[in-house]
Amino acid sequence: MKKIINNPERVVEEMMEGIVAAYPQYVRKLENYNVLVRKNSPVEGKVALVSGGGSGHEPSHGGFVGEGMLDAAVAGAVFTSPTPDAIYEAVKNVASDKGALLIIKNYTGDVMNFDMAKEMAEMDGIRVESVIVNDDVAVENSTWTVGRRGIAGTVFVHKIAGAKAETGAELDEVKRVTEKVIANVRSMGMALTPCIVPAAGKPNFTLDENEMEIGMGIHGEPGTHRENLKTADEIVEHLMSKILGDINLEEKDDVAVMINGLGATPLMELFIANRKVDEILKTRGVRVYRTFVGEFMTSLEMAGFSISILKLDDELKELLDAKADTPALKVL
Amino acid sequence: MKKIINNPERVVEEMMEGIVAAYPQYVRKLENYNVLVRKNSPVEGKVALVSGGGSGHEPSHGGFVGEGMLDAAVAGAVFTSPTPDAIYEAVKNVASDKGALLIIKNYTGDVMNFDMAKEMAEMDGIRVESVIVNDDVAVENSTWTVGRRGIAGTVFVHKIAGAKAETGAELDEVKRVTEKVIANVRSMGMALTPCIVPAAGKPNFTLDENEMEIGMGIHGEPGTHRENLKTADEIVEHLMSKILGDINLEEKDDVAVMINGLGATPLMELFIANRKVDEILKTRGVRVYRTFVGEFMTSLEMAGFSISILKLDDELKELLDAKADTPALKVL
Repeated sequence: MKKIINNPERVVEEMMEGIVAAYPQYVRKLENYNVLVRKNSPVEGKVALVSGGGSGHEPSHGGFVGEGMLDAAVAGAVFTSPTPDAIYEAVKNVASDKGALLIIKNYTGDVMNFDMAKEMAEMDGIRVESVIVNDDVAVENSTWTVGRRGIAGTVFVHKIAGAKAETGAELDEVKRVTEKVIANVRSMGMALTPCIVPAAGKPNFTLDENEMEIGMGIHGEPGTHRENLKTADEIVEHLMSKILGDINLEEKDDVAVMINGLGATPLMELFIANRKVDEILKTRGVRVYRTFVGEFMTSLEMAGFSISILKLDDELKELLDAKADTPALKVL
Repeated sequence: MKKIINNPERVVEEMMEGIVAAYPQYVRKLENYNVLVRKNSPVEGKVALVSGGGSGHEPSHGGFVGEGMLDAAVAGAVFTSPTPDAIYEAVKNVASDKGALLIIKNYTGDVMNFDMAKEMAEMDGIRVESVIVNDDVAVENSTWTVGRRGIAGTVFVHKIAGAKAETGAELDEVKRVTEKVIANVRSMGMALTPCIVPAAGKPNFTLDENEMEIGMGIHGEPGTHRENLKTADEIVEHLMSKILGDINLEEKDDVAVMINGLGATPLMELFIANRKVDEILKTRGVRVYRTFVGEFMTSLEMAGFSISILKLDDELKELLDAKADTPALKVL
């Protein structure tokens, strides 16, 4: 295992210290919990957005804490759900008079622990609602999931929910818009290599030298199938056919595109993939309103990428364009 | 070779198409040249900044084209200097009445080709100046360099020169500030794995399973030595001792820090490295004014990272904080 770390058992704690050292203008860490909150939280008059999950997906989710996105990000151990008490502490610290919305990726552990935290916060009299993101069209049910998995499309959910919350909208309004994003976003990915959880010390799956996995999850959960490596264009055509087969897109519809690197994929390859995604959409007469290319939800040093497509209406466009100022995503 | 590409001979062209498809609001491509220019260039009344080099270092340099940074980025083949005529076309297209400044990383081919382009532009009556970035403290002279190599510190040069140019300053003033940044920035890196140039199809060097290379260049040029993998803290201590041994930093001095991933390094590891960088600086009483963690100047899918330290005065702080709006770096 070749990693730039000190102690495999302390990677999350040391990472949190490194994040706070890098971005004191954005975040502070709650004492005794691996929770990053907005520096000036709670923000009164604004619904607080709380998300999180296992570590190893950086910049998700701590990198999206800041103006126009999240109020708190809860970090579990690598690829492991955060505990209910950590989530509860996050909610308690950032919830305003307007309450809090929990944005949960659809993994059984996450759903269970965020739900328990929600109940604990409600017993304190805090208004809490939750939504579950399940954008991955690859497979129904998976190693750690009933239903579809939540992957990189979650970052669109954070962006738009965050912009809506920033307007001072009430909790039910923020939840309505957030659910609209979830209903309109679809993703699917592929991997060239596995990754190594530091505490495990060995790859979470294996692939032959010329093999790729289609539709795997961001923790290395099995995808739809394995096959020999194809060209970028062929890979994109397959992923896009699955995504577009699952969402009703018509001519002149507007979409946002995210090409998300999983950790070890050069930007060069992500742009080559985007070239084909753009061509497929334009051939159908679909308008690409905004494109995001980079690392948004990774799987440590896994090589591969995912495509997310978000169908936009005027409300979502305005919120997507609204200001965001976070370590990992800025919109001017 | 596991890569998400179509044709190894066409990776740069297809990447350029993917970049333009992603960021039409920022850049356009010159016809017949792998040159990205600001969408609204030339910007009258502003010194134009032109940089570039071999491809494979994305987001350098095309990702930094936009308001407050570069006016043009010239992309050569992978790890290969761009041709003089491509650089000349870039200068011709973006130079304003105030002229153009070329920002060159110190590689023999780059210096030669940018110099030839400068002469060609001057024959057209365009005012052109140039600066050479040589921030890598690892080695004097190298495979493709006389003197020190230019690496990730170049991004600080782009940022601050860009901010100065945006004020409408004259060419000699922009050059003066740019040279101040170059005099004040130092970098050094390390690698865990090599990378594969697509057209070559095999790694550019090899490392044993438990071996790392210290001080290698961003094209895989040899560094100072190889040794068994150490802890993140030990690696950072070594790199910082070389960097701090080469720049005069006193208590209460302000610095900007860049922790630059080379392509395949998880953000988690970059933050663990930053934790130690921050500790070393603070122990010396040096103030960390701003920190950048991410991928700024990569080497395809090389695993490893570099540290850059920029000593700041009031002028440099103000310019570092000035607005930048580019695909890969935004400062609000």
